[in-house]
Amino acid sequence: MKPSLVFIALLLAITAFSGSTQKQTFLKWELGYSKSASETPSKWIPATVPGAVQLDIAKADKYEPFYYAEHWKDYLWMEDQFYTYRTKFDAPEKATGESVFFVSKGIDYEFKVFLNGAEIWHQEGMFTPVNLNLSDKLKPTNELKVLVYPVPKKHPLPADRSQAANVAKPAVSYGWDWHPRLVPLGIWDETYLEIRQASHVDDFHMNYALNKDFSEAEIDLQISGQNLKTQAFRWTLQDKEGKEVLRSDGKTQLTLTKPKLWWTHDHGEPYLYTSTLQLLNDQGQAFQTLVSKIGFRRVKLVMNEGAWGDPEGFPKSRSVPPAQLEINGRKIFCKGTNWVNPEIFPGIMNRERYNQLLSLAVEANFNILRVWGGGIVNKESFFELCDEKGILVWQEFPLACNNYPDDAHYLSILKQESASIINRVKKHPSLAFWSGGNELFNSWSGMTDQSLPLRLLNRQCLELDPNSPFIPTSPLMGMAHGNYVFRDLQTKEEVFSSMARARYTAYTEFGMPAPASVEVLKTIIPKEELWPPKPGTSWESHHAYKAWVGNTWLCQDIIEDYFGVSNSLEELVANGQLMQGEGYKCIYEEARRQKPYCAMAINWCYDEPWPTAANNSLLSYPAIPKPGFYAVKNACRPVLASAKFSKFKWTEGETFFADIWMLSDLPKDVSAGKVTIKIRTGTSEMTLLNWEFNAMKANTNQSGPTVRCKLPAWKTDRFKVILEVEGHPEYKSEYTLAYQPRSVERVRTTPVMNQ
Amino acid sequence: MKPSLVFIALLLAITAFSGSTQKQTFLKWELGYSKSASETPSKWIPATVPGAVQLDIAKADKYEPFYYAEHWKDYLWMEDQFYTYRTKFDAPEKATGESVFFVSKGIDYEFKVFLNGAEIWHQEGMFTPVNLNLSDKLKPTNELKVLVYPVPKKHPLPADRSQAANVAKPAVSYGWDWHPRLVPLGIWDETYLEIRQASHVDDFHMNYALNKDFSEAEIDLQISGQNLKTQAFRWTLQDKEGKEVLRSDGKTQLTLTKPKLWWTHDHGEPYLYTSTLQLLNDQGQAFQTLVSKIGFRRVKLVMNEGAWGDPEGFPKSRSVPPAQLEINGRKIFCKGTNWVNPEIFPGIMNRERYNQLLSLAVEANFNILRVWGGGIVNKESFFELCDEKGILVWQEFPLACNNYPDDAHYLSILKQESASIINRVKKHPSLAFWSGGNELFNSWSGMTDQSLPLRLLNRQCLELDPNSPFIPTSPLMGMAHGNYVFRDLQTKEEVFSSMARARYTAYTEFGMPAPASVEVLKTIIPKEELWPPKPGTSWESHHAYKAWVGNTWLCQDIIEDYFGVSNSLEELVANGQLMQGEGYKCIYEEARRQKPYCAMAINWCYDEPWPTAANNSLLSYPAIPKPGFYAVKNACRPVLASAKFSKFKWTEGETFFADIWMLSDLPKDVSAGKVTIKIRTGTSEMTLLNWEFNAMKANTNQSGPTVRCKLPAWKTDRFKVILEVEGHPEYKSEYTLAYQPRSVERVRTTPVMNQ
Repeated sequence: MKPSLVFIALLLAITAFSGSTQKQTFLKWELGYSKSASETPSKWIPATVPGAVQLDIAKADKYEPFYYAEHWKDYLWMEDQFYTYRTKFDAPEKATGESVFFVSKGIDYEFKVFLNGAEIWHQEGMFTPVNLNLSDKLKPTNELKVLVYPVPKKHPLPADRSQAANVAKPAVSYGWDWHPRLVPLGIWDETYLEIRQASHVDDFHMNYALNKDFSEAEIDLQISGQNLKTQAFRWTLQDKEGKEVLRSDGKTQLTLTKPKLWWTHDHGEPYLYTSTLQLLNDQGQAFQTLVSKIGFRRVKLVMNEGAWGDPEGFPKSRSVPPAQLEINGRKIFCKGTNWVNPEIFPGIMNRERYNQLLSLAVEANFNILRVWGGGIVNKESFFELCDEKGILVWQEFPLACNNYPDDAHYLSILKQESASIINRVKKHPSLAFWSGGNELFNSWSGMTDQSLPLRLLNRQCLELDPNSPFIPTSPLMGMAHGNYVFRDLQTKEEVFSSMARARYTAYTEFGMPAPASVEVLKTIIPKEELWPPKPGTSWESHHAYKAWVGNTWLCQDIIEDYFGVSNSLEELVANGQLMQGEGYKCIYEEARRQKPYCAMAINWCYDEPWPTAANNSLLSYPAIPKPGFYAVKNACRPVLASAKFSKFKWTEGETFFADIWMLSDLPKDVSAGKVTIKIRTGTSEMTLLNWEFNAMKANTNQSGPTVRCKLPAWKTDRFKVILEVEGHPEYKSEYTLAYQPRSVERVRTTPVMNQ
Repeated sequence: MKPSLVFIALLLAITAFSGSTQKQTFLKWELGYSKSASETPSKWIPATVPGAVQLDIAKADKYEPFYYAEHWKDYLWMEDQFYTYRTKFDAPEKATGESVFFVSKGIDYEFKVFLNGAEIWHQEGMFTPVNLNLSDKLKPTNELKVLVYPVPKKHPLPADRSQAANVAKPAVSYGWDWHPRLVPLGIWDETYLEIRQASHVDDFHMNYALNKDFSEAEIDLQISGQNLKTQAFRWTLQDKEGKEVLRSDGKTQLTLTKPKLWWTHDHGEPYLYTSTLQLLNDQGQAFQTLVSKIGFRRVKLVMNEGAWGDPEGFPKSRSVPPAQLEINGRKIFCKGTNWVNPEIFPGIMNRERYNQLLSLAVEANFNILRVWGGGIVNKESFFELCDEKGILVWQEFPLACNNYPDDAHYLSILKQESASIINRVKKHPSLAFWSGGNELFNSWSGMTDQSLPLRLLNRQCLELDPNSPFIPTSPLMGMAHGNYVFRDLQTKEEVFSSMARARYTAYTEFGMPAPASVEVLKTIIPKEELWPPKPGTSWESHHAYKAWVGNTWLCQDIIEDYFGVSNSLEELVANGQLMQGEGYKCIYEEARRQKPYCAMAINWCYDEPWPTAANNSLLSYPAIPKPGFYAVKNACRPVLASAKFSKFKWTEGETFFADIWMLSDLPKDVSAGKVTIKIRTGTSEMTLLNWEFNAMKANTNQSGPTVRCKLPAWKTDRFKVILEVEGHPEYKSEYTLAYQPRSVERVRTTPVMNQ
């Protein structure tokens, strides 16, 4: 067991396992607050752990829900209090040599721990687990307290994200264009007492390297813990059927031949093995068992095809950096979405909530999630589910849109937090690559390659997880970032036109706003404010107005420019949601047409942390698909017929045209076939062309003809373009475009055409 | 002494000091070679240490000089031999507790050391000093052997730089467009026996941090060595006048108030303090003394002014990375040159040779040298002289134009070598920043941000020298690299036009070829080949033909396009050298006009390692200025009047025009004045304009008028443009342009007009 016994100097770096035989006791907590650290709270209320102090107070004192109307403002005072969690417990029974540990997987953000009145720990950082041996200080009955400091703020004003510029705490909580100002505090992940043997494992990592042709995995078992030196262990690896495929009785270096590889769900099977590590006593009996899921894959970021050609001629300079993901030697096109905190208070996130969202991500044909640096690094169950479902995770560190400083204190916290994050997450095959954070190289942040926090993160990733790629931030040169509207607010250029002009290695944040459904709107906006929407009402604090730049996110003027003044909330919502879907389809499909130079299409954003009135998200809170979700799902199918349009609105008598393609990201060949292209209104249908396309090699597209027709006189404000593929209903695509009859009189058809 | 006693785990990381009181014995060496490592050389010849095996053989066996005609080819067989250096010595007298060390500051490239027949060391890497305690194994008389392996080659063929793609050995020796294929081997830096006390210092570094307003330096003395724990020391810092300004008797943390800052020679004084560290015995007497020069400065790479604006609008992406150097809080414009190995065999480089070249660099008004990654990291005296002369060093690691692999063995050597390089060079105030190497992100290399060698170098620099900037390679996006000719070989666009179109943060490699002077040519090309120059002769192997792309570097066709067929070697050389100077002036002055967006002008290249027939260098080997050197010197003056031309050749009757500027990089204001602009031929002179320019703030330019005149009929093939500044002869500038009379008959004036 000696060769690879790693002594991890960082006391706190223990990690969660899928299963462990150590005995855990969950405690009952109370919460109080006060104006200073020294003052004792005058009142105690029940605390939910894990959770957030705000939720406990709201429950105890019967606050209106923060998501309704303007009630989030009632919670603002809670930022500046000191919070004390307390619990009483009897000293647990334990055998000789055993110890009692206080374990918390996460406390947000700076805190002290007191046992029976004495301070035993002080920490800054919510991602580094707490792991305190209480044994020496235990009495028959004990009081444990956790004192949580107020929300850290770089400066008292302005009350915006820049207050988070010197902490490793998600900046989103300080306010964003789709997130109210609500900054969580408190115990936010699993917390308990645990009995541990004198000899025990704190952390286990099965490191491996795949050889060139993936026929062998060289395995290195990395075990760290207490008093392990003379301890024997047994380790086994079982396949999905439970068959043991590898076993070690004390050796740390092993070879697995013909490992079954882990793939994303669209490229193969997300194959997981079961790893079981057992510490053995002198009689060979196991007294600690750690069970976890293991996947074998190799991830690389390589240059996009054709990118070495930029720039041509002199003066020469570097090309755009790699944005092509390669999994197990295969270049894959990444289709996905930007994941944001699904809750304002992530402490209440659990496996069920994650599962709800991740099951929908698979349904949407997504193979990657960019976990945006404005939010948290998710809990373990998130990664476990991504492993199982075959979804890749582009994981950012919690830095976003700020100039994080070259400051010794901040760097030391970042070093600690990043080590905890990396050592936990690197065990998951779903990890695609690391990113230093969101938009750090942009002018509004002001960080550069020279910024020490980013150089430190690169170093940390290289040191702790050298086999995973690292990018300092996103976007990088060559990646498109934005736009976030159907047509540009200044130039009025539509997404159809700007995408046709664009040539990027990856589209990593593009948005299309849509209002929430009427049902959702009714749960957040008081009845009297619902119609018509107006700035200065709950519409505004739920991001329909002045949320980002200009008149976002409702964009009523743009919607009505195409379809005329809305007569009802229902009509406005339906038209806005239709445009979100058509806009998103345009981008996803055009990005796919630009393959292989382009390798990623990742929209902004997937979910939202509370119900917004309007947002770029595909899901309303908590996980309600907007119509745009289904549009995107269709655009991300492995194989589909696709049409490229030059604009959204067409006029009677004008010659309509569209370029026809067959798109395939399938890892298998597609046989030849026939696409029939039609246009249709409520009352009429015309076939424009039959295109017989050739057989397609795996993972390649085929460009087809341009279809044209002079648009007839219709009494409608929209029409559909339909692409049917003979014998393959699953390849069929439909698009809705706006239509302008010559008559000045406004024509309205029923707007619900985008199911 | 405890708090900062750093135990350096790497056994070999000892470093040279300006002075040390340890006793050194230099040895007399012999050299032999054989076909295999086990075979004993049949013949022994005298060896010069430091030097190179090739030079020893050439001397002993009376080889023709490798630089004459094709004789470099006679040396090629020496690549594939095993070399043995041997020396005999009597065990040195030493007191109790003292040890005898074998010290070598550099052996190139892989080698073993044997003492009395027993192998005591095996190393790969020429930048990591050897530091072996021989005491235990010494006999009254001893034989020391160093077995040097053949030139490392990734593959036997092709015999080009790609053979160096997995070693930390300069790639240039494997052949370049100005460097013959000659790959040094052998002991290349100081090598001796040294008596050391039981307690001694191996390495000393005065680390410091300057506070915001530079009023204080927080000093941290980092001392590493053997048996130091209980050892007392004394450390003093003396100013230039020898006055002690700081003293420590055992403390490692000190504060220096009002440190005098180190500046480049053009921005202030390169102020150096003297640091003296003494180890004391129980009686308080010094038994080891280390003396070195120390400078205080802060270097940063920050965003270029205006660079955050790129790109405007959506899709947003990152801006170009920082290329603006800031010294002690002041943004300075870097004027400099690319430094290449001044010798084919760098083992013979010494302080005198460095001084010759660096004195000329100061004369040329250069404040920075880019030490190109194709060559070596220079010896200590190079950095000491740069410290003294106030020249910054952009230091690249020895990686160039290859795809260095993510391979465990290579990474381990690179880690070792980079640690040795960083720990030595970081002590010098002249160090501006680190670069991973040359052109690694270009298509012909194929490395990316994901390449582990570059991530490793970032890590090494952050770990060992966090206060110095690091760039992964050059060029980076935003930096111009090339072109290398007066006019583009394909498009025929002249440098005057391409520079006017260019907008870059830095021009870090731009070349203008020129033939060597006739005197130099006669030393390398046999008489019968001298005129006319032809491919396939010694002209070609001295880089006049097919050296880079197309017909480089002589470019006779381009020269004669402007000035007609040359009648003699003298005429061809003079015209070629004139064009080099005018081309270089164009680029340096235009880069300065583009300040502050542009922050660097660094030409390719300064020197050359052997006499070339034609090259972009400003100096012929060993240090002979070409006329272009003086042109560049003028273009880099702190203040000058400058003219911007649209082209080189003008025709009789055409309206000539030029934009007039005053350029200043001076850290002081420049007062108002008057520029008189004239044109002149051998026989006539015309004044075009008097421009009264305004007073200029420190470090700013002023754009002036465009002058115009219809060109008269002259009997000449060239004319001069002269800018005189009233009362300031030192600001005067002169340019020579080509002229075409209307008559078809060729007109020739005496070509030597560019002195």
